[in-house]
Amino acid sequence: MHELTGRILAGDVRGAARAITCIENDYPERTQVLREIFPHTGRAKLIGITGAPGAGKSSLVDNLIGYLRSMELKVGVVAVDPTSPFTGGALLGDRVRMQSHALDKGVFIRSMGTRGSLGGLSRNTRDAVRVLDAYGCDVILIETVGVGQSELDVMHIADTTVVVLNPGGGDAVQAFKAGIMEIADLFVINKADLPGVEKLQVEVEQMLDLAKHDAPWRPPVVRTVSIESRGLDDLWNAILRHQAYLVESGEGAARRAKHLKDEVLEIVHDQLYRRMLQSVEAGAFADALEDVAQRVRDPYTVAGQIADSWFQQGR
Amino acid sequence: MHELTGRILAGDVRGAARAITCIENDYPERTQVLREIFPHTGRAKLIGITGAPGAGKSSLVDNLIGYLRSMELKVGVVAVDPTSPFTGGALLGDRVRMQSHALDKGVFIRSMGTRGSLGGLSRNTRDAVRVLDAYGCDVILIETVGVGQSELDVMHIADTTVVVLNPGGGDAVQAFKAGIMEIADLFVINKADLPGVEKLQVEVEQMLDLAKHDAPWRPPVVRTVSIESRGLDDLWNAILRHQAYLVESGEGAARRAKHLKDEVLEIVHDQLYRRMLQSVEAGAFADALEDVAQRVRDPYTVAGQIADSWFQQGR
Repeated sequence: MHELTGRILAGDVRGAARAITCIENDYPERTQVLREIFPHTGRAKLIGITGAPGAGKSSLVDNLIGYLRSMELKVGVVAVDPTSPFTGGALLGDRVRMQSHALDKGVFIRSMGTRGSLGGLSRNTRDAVRVLDAYGCDVILIETVGVGQSELDVMHIADTTVVVLNPGGGDAVQAFKAGIMEIADLFVINKADLPGVEKLQVEVEQMLDLAKHDAPWRPPVVRTVSIESRGLDDLWNAILRHQAYLVESGEGAARRAKHLKDEVLEIVHDQLYRRMLQSVEAGAFADALEDVAQRVRDPYTVAGQIADSWFQQGR
Repeated sequence: MHELTGRILAGDVRGAARAITCIENDYPERTQVLREIFPHTGRAKLIGITGAPGAGKSSLVDNLIGYLRSMELKVGVVAVDPTSPFTGGALLGDRVRMQSHALDKGVFIRSMGTRGSLGGLSRNTRDAVRVLDAYGCDVILIETVGVGQSELDVMHIADTTVVVLNPGGGDAVQAFKAGIMEIADLFVINKADLPGVEKLQVEVEQMLDLAKHDAPWRPPVVRTVSIESRGLDDLWNAILRHQAYLVESGEGAARRAKHLKDEVLEIVHDQLYRRMLQSVEAGAFADALEDVAQRVRDPYTVAGQIADSWFQQGR
């Protein structure tokens, strides 16, 4: 057993932090540790939280941490940060503020960036969540800014996905058009002290009427004012109701099984790419690639031939 | 020959538009058309334009189109749009405004979205650029919002990448930290009528001193005021100087050769993944996947075994 595995399972915070660093940087011990902790995972409640920039997700998460801590639950937060090259990680708001929990050993907060991660954001996030699960977190909040489809894909890791909206943001219709309905299990109207709350709630309910009129689970709409910690009871109770629905309907188990199968294929995909690169670096297909570089042959035909030669033998 | 190929090569605008639709939707004729037009590509100047949201890229591109049209150059624009689920495609600004060129047959403008594109944004963009190249565009502008690493990767399609900065945006240092220096061939300080221009220019030059003190090409810094069309001569001359540098140094040919080789590998990777999915849908590895879904085995080990079985036979 890797020493990090033991430390994670013993609840050693620095061990967990180190393991996530190994994941982010794809260090060799990554896979061994993940293999070893896997049997000790699957216990935590995984709650996804997404919404437009400025919707107040950070302060909502901040308050939710405090609320969960008041019940003595151990809380993990994985903040998925799209790392804009122009704005840095500022999209997710003030990370420093969340450090109000920095001295609380029952809270573990970590940002995951997208840099250099060959489409590996969802993989890294999932693996980090798994570390926090094995580390003993009761609840893991996965927070992301919905700036792109790939950030939203991360939400498929969660059991319950909370979509945070704002009155006056005018974002409800846009969000629904872009497929938010498919991932939302629960809506929060945050900043519910601002004007326009009723209008937004009506809009959301109307769209739910259209989209989910006969669905077994209709996403509830909860109001919060996160700067005053208002509505947290409602939010948490709605999350627990959704979790109960997942268990009773069997949908939770089905979702998790599907996520695991998808994960296997994603890892295989990644490995095929790495091995292909290694093989090319070792000289495979050098002539064919040079032909394309010289524009003697086209990339589509050559790629098809390489894939064929690989795949037919691989059957 | 596919009828679309003939229409593209004959300069039929609707044929070009239709071909890009085929690319976006991955219709079966996509590959045939791309194969057939490939020998007729490689002629256009490919100019990438990126920068933070709000930097004024859209109006700069708009003015640049007008400038290039005044020289009777045929212009293509591919705008890469990260399609936020919460804000729609609004990040790239007012597309409608660019329609001021809608009646000009010498201008072709197209947005490429990210939805449903399995990491295929850069592939789709490159293929659309190729269609516009074969269609006869002299200059193709590839515009993207630098909101994520994947959007920046698109810039590797270009020969010359222009990074648009703003005085007072405070984004220069962030941008440099996040690797913008590696992709920038040219900086534009747009909105150069606002205060803070001198300060920003000094910052950029200082960072260039550090990063590029002995590089054969030092990115020039050009000032524009795009709402007044000021600085366009300077910008275009700087782009032409960079294009001349690419030819004289041989770097242009080397970049294009590398891009073509990378493209082949990207297509192979995509094909391997599709074939893997087909094969799994047809029942391959069903028991192993079910073991993972039931948590009897871990996803890392099973994925490694599947990749092994495929790859070792594929050598």
